[in-house]
Amino acid sequence: PGITIGDTVPNLEVEIKYGNSHFCVLNFTLHDYFKNSWTIIFFHPADFTPVCTTELGKMAAYLPEFEKRGVKVLGFSCDDVQSHEEWIKDPRCKVTYPIVADPNRKIIKQLNMVDPDKKDSSGNQLPSRALHIVGPDNKIKLSFLYPACTGRNINEVVRALDSLQKSSKYKVATPANWKPGDPMVICPSVTNEEAEKMFPQGFETQKLPSGKDYLRFTCVN
Amino acid sequence: PGITIGDTVPNLEVEIKYGNSHFCVLNFTLHDYFKNSWTIIFFHPADFTPVCTTELGKMAAYLPEFEKRGVKVLGFSCDDVQSHEEWIKDPRCKVTYPIVADPNRKIIKQLNMVDPDKKDSSGNQLPSRALHIVGPDNKIKLSFLYPACTGRNINEVVRALDSLQKSSKYKVATPANWKPGDPMVICPSVTNEEAEKMFPQGFETQKLPSGKDYLRFTCVN
Repeated sequence: PGITIGDTVPNLEVEIKYGNSHFCVLNFTLHDYFKNSWTIIFFHPADFTPVCTTELGKMAAYLPEFEKRGVKVLGFSCDDVQSHEEWIKDPRCKVTYPIVADPNRKIIKQLNMVDPDKKDSSGNQLPSRALHIVGPDNKIKLSFLYPACTGRNINEVVRALDSLQKSSKYKVATPANWKPGDPMVICPSVTNEEAEKMFPQGFETQKLPSGKDYLRFTCVN
Repeated sequence: PGITIGDTVPNLEVEIKYGNSHFCVLNFTLHDYFKNSWTIIFFHPADFTPVCTTELGKMAAYLPEFEKRGVKVLGFSCDDVQSHEEWIKDPRCKVTYPIVADPNRKIIKQLNMVDPDKKDSSGNQLPSRALHIVGPDNKIKLSFLYPACTGRNINEVVRALDSLQKSSKYKVATPANWKPGDPMVICPSVTNEEAEKMFPQGFETQKLPSGKDYLRFTCVN
């Protein structure tokens, strides 16, 4: 089990290592960090391990993409702040977002992000490779739960964010394999009459064998 | 909460509509269907809704990719078998994989895949847009939990499958944004001496500021 989409992220107090330019430890609560922005929270099995290091670096490389979308980033691992301080020198791209330290496994237990199989060399629990996109209401909107062997695809994280942000602004949703610029579909709750007012750019209803007219495409910026 | 990576999928008895060439209803258990193959199980909020229909069609279009990898596909929605019979005519690509009918919400409740927010027009619960990759041991290896507004990316499902299957055969893992053909990393549990025997094609250790030698790349077919 784990917290899942629709759940509010508990407002835990966390200890954070911020950036790699100077040693700076901070304590604050998760909701204080989110500050009603979209936020990506992501968990790592362990510092100084290969997949995690590539992910830490890719998240840093994509930070301008997230910032452009008003999205904050917050990493988590069970190692301590001193370990994070050393570790964040290793990725190819400079890590400037904070990483929560959770050496006592308090946070992964409360967020139910304990990997059911993996243990460290001392037998301590490790987090799974979980990534949640949190909305401005502190609720989880979308989750990726990958095992230790599979590094995440940050392109898919950006694509999902674009879908979530568009569909929170307009009554639209994104079809399978959608990418920015592709047409979106109009939500079933919107009648054709409403759609005409809501989408002055027009929409196209796809003819379907069932004869039903639920597949309506439109483009929104 | 929901079943998550590491959990065994419960061996529920299900009612299935198989293929769209003839009307055929079957009952069997999930483990009988998996038969120790890799299997993708995916849930849809509702029949005759736009995003679900594009996903159903894309999964059908990618079926040869899954079959090439020995992977089975099983859809789920809460509508009944008769509804599925009509619905599967709508996607652009012919649906030949089975879709479980769950009109009484027994399965989504037992698999804990109830969407916390969405209800149908009669106030019934709906499933979230969950997709689990199940391993040959009937355990969930990886999960995508998307909300109703965001259609899944089947390319990412294929990429993740390739990573899972490779790392179940060799002591390797895939870095962030990995795609087939890219180098993989050697698992930390493997010593350099073992790696030399295990990967006769050789491996390259990346020099890191920490001076640690945990980031070792190799190529496996």
